[in-house]
Amino acid sequence: MTQTVTSPRPPRPGAAAAPGTAGPAASDLGRLLASCVDRPGIVSAITAFLHDRGANITQYDQETTDPVGGRFFQRLVFHLPGLRERLPQLEREFGETVAPRFGMTWRMRDVDALPRVALFVSRYDHCLLDLLWRWRRGEFPIDIVQVVSNHPDLAEAVAGFGVPYAHIPVTRATKPEAEQAQLDLLRDRVDLVVLARYMQILSGDLLDRIGVPVINIHHSFLPAFAGASPYDRARERGVKLIGATAHYATEDLDEGPIIEQDVIRVSHRHNAADLVRLGADIERTVLARAVRWHCEDRVMVNGRTTIVF
Amino acid sequence: MTQTVTSPRPPRPGAAAAPGTAGPAASDLGRLLASCVDRPGIVSAITAFLHDRGANITQYDQETTDPVGGRFFQRLVFHLPGLRERLPQLEREFGETVAPRFGMTWRMRDVDALPRVALFVSRYDHCLLDLLWRWRRGEFPIDIVQVVSNHPDLAEAVAGFGVPYAHIPVTRATKPEAEQAQLDLLRDRVDLVVLARYMQILSGDLLDRIGVPVINIHHSFLPAFAGASPYDRARERGVKLIGATAHYATEDLDEGPIIEQDVIRVSHRHNAADLVRLGADIERTVLARAVRWHCEDRVMVNGRTTIVF
Amino acid sequence: MTQTVTSPRPPRPGAAAAPGTAGPAASDLGRLLASCVDRPGIVSAITAFLHDRGANITQYDQETTDPVGGRFFQRLVFHLPGLRERLPQLEREFGETVAPRFGMTWRMRDVDALPRVALFVSRYDHCLLDLLWRWRRGEFPIDIVQVVSNHPDLAEAVAGFGVPYAHIPVTRATKPEAEQAQLDLLRDRVDLVVLARYMQILSGDLLDRIGVPVINIHHSFLPAFAGASPYDRARERGVKLIGATAHYATEDLDEGPIIEQDVIRVSHRHNAADLVRLGADIERTVLARAVRWHCEDRVMVNGRTTIVF
Amino acid sequence: MTQTVTSPRPPRPGAAAAPGTAGPAASDLGRLLASCVDRPGIVSAITAFLHDRGANITQYDQETTDPVGGRFFQRLVFHLPGLRERLPQLEREFGETVAPRFGMTWRMRDVDALPRVALFVSRYDHCLLDLLWRWRRGEFPIDIVQVVSNHPDLAEAVAGFGVPYAHIPVTRATKPEAEQAQLDLLRDRVDLVVLARYMQILSGDLLDRIGVPVINIHHSFLPAFAGASPYDRARERGVKLIGATAHYATEDLDEGPIIEQDVIRVSHRHNAADLVRLGADIERTVLARAVRWHCEDRVMVNGRTTIVF
Repeated sequence: MTQTVTSPRPPRPGAAAAPGTAGPAASDLGRLLASCVDRPGIVSAITAFLHDRGANITQYDQETTDPVGGRFFQRLVFHLPGLRERLPQLEREFGETVAPRFGMTWRMRDVDALPRVALFVSRYDHCLLDLLWRWRRGEFPIDIVQVVSNHPDLAEAVAGFGVPYAHIPVTRATKPEAEQAQLDLLRDRVDLVVLARYMQILSGDLLDRIGVPVINIHHSFLPAFAGASPYDRARERGVKLIGATAHYATEDLDEGPIIEQDVIRVSHRHNAADLVRLGADIERTVLARAVRWHCEDRVMVNGRTTIVF
Repeated sequence: MTQTVTSPRPPRPGAAAAPGTAGPAASDLGRLLASCVDRPGIVSAITAFLHDRGANITQYDQETTDPVGGRFFQRLVFHLPGLRERLPQLEREFGETVAPRFGMTWRMRDVDALPRVALFVSRYDHCLLDLLWRWRRGEFPIDIVQVVSNHPDLAEAVAGFGVPYAHIPVTRATKPEAEQAQLDLLRDRVDLVVLARYMQILSGDLLDRIGVPVINIHHSFLPAFAGASPYDRARERGVKLIGATAHYATEDLDEGPIIEQDVIRVSHRHNAADLVRLGADIERTVLARAVRWHCEDRVMVNGRTTIVF
Repeated sequence: MTQTVTSPRPPRPGAAAAPGTAGPAASDLGRLLASCVDRPGIVSAITAFLHDRGANITQYDQETTDPVGGRFFQRLVFHLPGLRERLPQLEREFGETVAPRFGMTWRMRDVDALPRVALFVSRYDHCLLDLLWRWRRGEFPIDIVQVVSNHPDLAEAVAGFGVPYAHIPVTRATKPEAEQAQLDLLRDRVDLVVLARYMQILSGDLLDRIGVPVINIHHSFLPAFAGASPYDRARERGVKLIGATAHYATEDLDEGPIIEQDVIRVSHRHNAADLVRLGADIERTVLARAVRWHCEDRVMVNGRTTIVF
Repeated sequence: MTQTVTSPRPPRPGAAAAPGTAGPAASDLGRLLASCVDRPGIVSAITAFLHDRGANITQYDQETTDPVGGRFFQRLVFHLPGLRERLPQLEREFGETVAPRFGMTWRMRDVDALPRVALFVSRYDHCLLDLLWRWRRGEFPIDIVQVVSNHPDLAEAVAGFGVPYAHIPVTRATKPEAEQAQLDLLRDRVDLVVLARYMQILSGDLLDRIGVPVINIHHSFLPAFAGASPYDRARERGVKLIGATAHYATEDLDEGPIIEQDVIRVSHRHNAADLVRLGADIERTVLARAVRWHCEDRVMVNGRTTIVF
């Protein structure tokens, strides 16, 4: 493994400073995500809990999959002065009172604490560069801390963004060692992995051990053209729209919960290279939306599907 | 005025029966819409109020226009056994406790009580027939009780749907009497008026006196091509997309709060007749969405704009 | 088989009269479609042929699948005074001179001679009514001469359009006889069959013997969710867009050349009934486009795919 | 004026070499654009001319604005071995025979001779970087020879692409000198100027003297919100879609012929910054399409409108 950092990391415009440093003023905004089997009183219990502690709810989204016996999903944003200091206690109290009462799966987060993200890439640069560029201009509430690639090709392009680039080659024979190197590099350092056209399949073992969500971009409108060479197959089948799908990676290839999809119109005038070119635009757009929504805590997994608030 | 009813009104598939009749089982679902100046405790107060009376909140949408000093908008759906009978008391109690505490504008509604709608039309049938057809197949939670037209042309087409058709001619000279006839016909009989390509301008006086919201469809992507002949002007200007806009009618023509808009791609290949044809599809689609959303209590007016939950 | 014609056929607005009757003035517009293996001189030969006979080319579209060794496809519209009378001789001459020189597949048509169309339907009315309504308002350059259904349900709705409605029930046991009745009814009477949500599979034998193109609408974005219950499967898979596909019917179900596709965005908020409702709008829109384009001679089949000029 | 070239110009992947150098094999493809008042025989004359000289027509698009008395527009691509050497004679012969016979406006071009393009920019980088990135990966058949800016901010970002960056400050007082400096820099060096969010208005005098087309991107769906601050005004008016428009710059600001437009859906959830962010994606997409189409000779101006083949 070769790790290259060619320049000191520049401050990202609009980024919040790390805790303890003299950075931008805290926004005092928190997010609470919760899900459980639906029954009366959940909303009231949550909102009373926050109100009693002086928090003002500024956004609230709720979905109940079925009015009777369905599952309850909720995302809310609240404003609480001094949130950064008060968050540990708030979490403890919520975990001891409201959450157990309803058997909730939940998490609470300080909006100013940016998720740390690693990007995996092979040789196609369009998704990677688009994510890096959006991040640099302040579009994403994240911190990109590492690029990992099985090829050295994009090291120079990434260097300009001040992000470390780890070249970890992967062959059939070295895959276990390579995945171990990836784990050693990332463990406890990232909150999300994004496969930005990374052309290697992650093993189920890696997905288990990495312990954070992994978002992948597939260059077709799944479930159409799952597997390899979707553009060639789209052209052979004569479809009139091509697309891209961002989904959470699971051990079942191309079967994970879909976060976002979009399409673009094509015609007989477009050859195979045109489809790749047009598809690249859809891929980078769809992946950017999925990453953004995930990092804004808008995406909740519900079995094989997602709820995107 | 000539009013024609050519056939007894057929029962609408899927429609709830009127209160007091032996109809479909009550869904026991209610909706509460509320808005006020934002401050802490609103959500908690509303949800506690409902919880204390045994209601379960099944959908909840909230928007606060600004975290500090902004305006709070909220739509929620709740399930409460026996709602039909309990609604009057629920309204009274909410109006005496929660609403005044926050200075709320609000309304509560039994989802089974269908809004009564009048459709205004002139000679173009596409918006009118599309609304009637969607209503007959059960797409809209409404009751279409009257069609009003300044022309007799569409009487026969409407007859097949079992809706009364009132022909009220309008000339420059007779406009005041015509509007009075419209008011006499509709007063206290409708909850919504939809202008489905009605080619007369309603006076500010009528809009005031009719006392219910009026939705209009404009055949352009407002504010582009406000006023007359938008398709001709779109073609002269060489735009690459044409559109339609559904908005609440106000005295300022084409200036009311926009509910929904959509567009379709056009090219040099399309002549003026093609734009009219393609536009008709967008008009009926956009108007149908706006009517549906309004009648599902999804649209809240915020000054010159709308919030669509 | 029961055939019902409840009212005399009303004249269609904008329709050209039949040859020999005192109808609208002839437009003198013709269309020529041609395809062959590409080689130099085709365009020049065709255009010289038309020019020498006094025709002016007003539209011209061409596609060559590959500059070297590809296939040439061409659609052109020409204006020739007295076309109706001159067409037979024009066809004969083209068939004796230009066509054999290049081994062309071709056809020439008087634009005023409307294609005769039969619509097949089962119980869902949305595609059928939309086609009939568009036809009545003059959107389609076609003549709808027959509706065929395996159910009686839509007879009354069709009657209002003045089109004969043949009820031909189909069971597993009677399918051969039913298909024979369909053939007897339609042979030499139609130029196109449209399956407007007809829920029976046409046998390969029928497709062979009917001798005209058959267009089908499938309620998914093929090849995703080919087969039955696409909306249910779309919801289970959690896709973010649903769609519809119009294609030429072939013996391989859901595998025929695609003419047109479109999609609409859906979310976790939409239940199964919502997908059906939203899908119905896409289905009727996509089918209407495909029928229109086919009848304007814009669609040419190229193996498993189509070229749509 | 400060001109910075920080690195030697890297070869662009996929770019054709300059004439006279040992570069990629010539494609032998040429394009002919022509327009004139329509009358019989134009197509035949053009195709015979090319056929007689051994050219094979591989693409052909034609538009006649009106079958009677309209204007004829045509774009064709032809294959002719040895085109590079034969082009001057071909142009001379066409200009002496076919063109004058029909009073044509026309131009012929070797597809391998890339148009030279200058990009103007101020401080927003999204359109500029997207064009440069697409160009570097071979998406555009152009040669970007110069970036011009009234600010120094983007010099470093441009340097990575190996394109010279000229910083020419503009104030109200120095505008004439600044425009003269721009003219001196670009005259006879470029075939197209692209205003990639250049926030200065070019004078009519500059537009006249520069002698090549100028493409601008406007950040609204023209003619809606022409002028300044379109996103703020879109939000105030509560539109449900925002868009961008690429058009040829003319002395009448925001009134030039539109090449391409597109829109994206927005809602009450989006604040002013969100509109800017979402709009940036539409702006760069629309501008990239317009530049591509222009440089593929697909765009022909017809009065205030364009034909895009």
